[in-house]
Amino acid sequence: MLLDAAREAAAEAVGCRPDELTFTSSGTRAVHTGIAGALAGRRRVGRHLIVSAVEHSSVLHAAELFEAAGGTVTQVPVDRAGRVQPSAYGDALRADTALACLQSANHEVGTEQPVAEAAEACRAAGVPLLVDAAQSLGWGPVEGDWSLLTASAHKWGGPSGVGLLVVRKGVRFAPQGPVDERESGRAAGFENIPAIVAAAASLRAVRAEAAAEAVRLRELTERIRARVPGLVPDAEVVGDPARRLPGVVTFSCLYVDGEALLHELDREGFSVSSGSSCTSSTLTPSHVLRAMGVLSEGNVRVSLPAGVAEEEVERFLEVLPRVVAGVREKLGAPASEAVVREADALVVDSLGKRCPIPVIELAKVIGDVPVGGLVRVLSDDEAARLDIPAWCEMRNQEYVGEEPADQGTAYLIRRAT
Amino acid sequence: MLLDAAREAAAEAVGCRPDELTFTSSGTRAVHTGIAGALAGRRRVGRHLIVSAVEHSSVLHAAELFEAAGGTVTQVPVDRAGRVQPSAYGDALRADTALACLQSANHEVGTEQPVAEAAEACRAAGVPLLVDAAQSLGWGPVEGDWSLLTASAHKWGGPSGVGLLVVRKGVRFAPQGPVDERESGRAAGFENIPAIVAAAASLRAVRAEAAAEAVRLRELTERIRARVPGLVPDAEVVGDPARRLPGVVTFSCLYVDGEALLHELDREGFSVSSGSSCTSSTLTPSHVLRAMGVLSEGNVRVSLPAGVAEEEVERFLEVLPRVVAGVREKLGAPASEAVVREADALVVDSLGKRCPIPVIELAKVIGDVPVGGLVRVLSDDEAARLDIPAWCEMRNQEYVGEEPADQGTAYLIRRAT
Repeated sequence: MLLDAAREAAAEAVGCRPDELTFTSSGTRAVHTGIAGALAGRRRVGRHLIVSAVEHSSVLHAAELFEAAGGTVTQVPVDRAGRVQPSAYGDALRADTALACLQSANHEVGTEQPVAEAAEACRAAGVPLLVDAAQSLGWGPVEGDWSLLTASAHKWGGPSGVGLLVVRKGVRFAPQGPVDERESGRAAGFENIPAIVAAAASLRAVRAEAAAEAVRLRELTERIRARVPGLVPDAEVVGDPARRLPGVVTFSCLYVDGEALLHELDREGFSVSSGSSCTSSTLTPSHVLRAMGVLSEGNVRVSLPAGVAEEEVERFLEVLPRVVAGVREKLGAPASEAVVREADALVVDSLGKRCPIPVIELAKVIGDVPVGGLVRVLSDDEAARLDIPAWCEMRNQEYVGEEPADQGTAYLIRRAT
Repeated sequence: MLLDAAREAAAEAVGCRPDELTFTSSGTRAVHTGIAGALAGRRRVGRHLIVSAVEHSSVLHAAELFEAAGGTVTQVPVDRAGRVQPSAYGDALRADTALACLQSANHEVGTEQPVAEAAEACRAAGVPLLVDAAQSLGWGPVEGDWSLLTASAHKWGGPSGVGLLVVRKGVRFAPQGPVDERESGRAAGFENIPAIVAAAASLRAVRAEAAAEAVRLRELTERIRARVPGLVPDAEVVGDPARRLPGVVTFSCLYVDGEALLHELDREGFSVSSGSSCTSSTLTPSHVLRAMGVLSEGNVRVSLPAGVAEEEVERFLEVLPRVVAGVREKLGAPASEAVVREADALVVDSLGKRCPIPVIELAKVIGDVPVGGLVRVLSDDEAARLDIPAWCEMRNQEYVGEEPADQGTAYLIRRAT
């Protein structure tokens, strides 16, 4: 009875029938089960999958596995705001497309996606669209005629260990892996009843406050968006300025080590995230920032929890300029002996140096060549591939391109101003 | 740090290295991931899997899936006590055996399995043994040289939503499905940290009391085992009398509807389980009782929680005879017009009637034929296939066999005494 009541409450919040909704053990599990089941259900149609380039890693991991098993995957690109073109999903559809996946909003930069348009194009072609609604379900139902939907309770402030998978009636779905009689054969194992009940109750509670809290948080994140560029020199706010989640704001700071910045902010009592390469175990920048083509160094993602006090945001804005300046000072003057003049280009040897050093060294020497002159930065840091072009765009310099070097990669920049 | 500490505590309780242990979202998930990963890791060796006939449904579902994908499965039978022969796993091994699975103890009847002997035979052949330790891990580590182990926190009194999967170093293991960097690539998705911490803490707490509590519960279950046959006519206690879990006792009562019995016990404040066909959604008796060849009708499984008071057990024994007698009285006299004499057999038409009616009708007429005479019971209830032979064994009557009838199945019984 508790499970039935929780299912009804969650289905009402999603806007689906209770028997279309199953509880899984996490949002990741909902995504994996949903994608595998939908692809298998339409195996006869074909083995083509469409995803956006900025989906959550759980979607991209499922896509990688599908590709490794012989499927074909189309990644739909995004603009500099992190948004897919509304027409892009329609354009990517093929006769053998089994499934398309699109997030409702991005988890790193908060940009909302044109889900309703993508769903309409998919529906017209008879292709199911799976919407990863992890970021937005607490704020409201997902609009449009989607076919499958996934979400995660801890993202709306509920407990860990509960995900949602919704499969609309009429969608072909063949669950993969061993199943039992629980959750329509879509989530095997003993149901985590206490957590499921808490998940449904918290979704209902969060939704009751959502409209008012969205207005309040949107004003606070707008404050950060508007004031950071003035408070912090060489900072770039990323993500769509209008079509975005209420509580997320992301920006990047040139010449800053993301790891050090997070550490210093943590000492000041602020827990933020980062998509910078130096804060990830793989030493590569976030795939989202990469797909957007924006600066990844010194990247900071601020997620305001519901109920956060205005004073906390003001204190963050007060502390931030000092913290960034401190980190920049510590990175200090780069080794100038790394710079040699070669043919008609100034060569900066940043081999073995990690983000943000290559960009700092580039910035230091660009004034040393005449307008029209070339700088050649040698780097073996993967982040440089993203951050040097992004720096050029921010600084109105011309990014010429890259070429393989004896070690690492050479990036060519022409001084334009 | 919390996750590391929980992993160390759980590993110490299991008797493994922390880096061999991963937390999953349930015991079922641990079983599914463990079996799929071990089978895939040894795909080149072969596609043969060994399981016992009384494994948990999560193991049997994984085995069914493997069989559907072209694998071969050997089910090792059990004796009437629910125990596999110690030599049985050695005998079942083949050159192409990829994996063997054996529970540490049975979840329905509490019988302990000869895990150490099975592990030794498997180790000698280079085949990994996966032990489903869900029932026993709270009581102590699993002995023997096993290769993989699974368990479930809510079984030892911990929270729902946490399972354990242990894969010993050196065991070939290829995780299936999409993975991420969490839990050694064996359990994707955000870790349920609060539940994992609670699971490890509760395992440690339960273990601290385990030795003393095992002695106490074993005495209480022994009381039930010893006294039920005297208190309730025609009741059979099932499971191994000595090699068994401390807190589980299971018995079956002839001529009793399991559903009604559970309902009446619930009204008296006792929550028990049953493997009777009439209490399952599939209308088939428990696969465990079927594999043991024991009576399934009126089946009751009593699981004593840690700390249960002696008085509660005494009250259960006081209430039980009255409750069973009441259920039997309600089932009352069967329709006698169902009995006709045909050739040299008395025919009982129980078509359309559910367990325990066919056995009740058989019992009512067996005295109507002379010693050596035949009774032919027509039944389309799946439970009759199990319960009529079990009744014959309990009553020292001769079970001749079954044959297809126009409708359902005809069971032949010769009166022997």
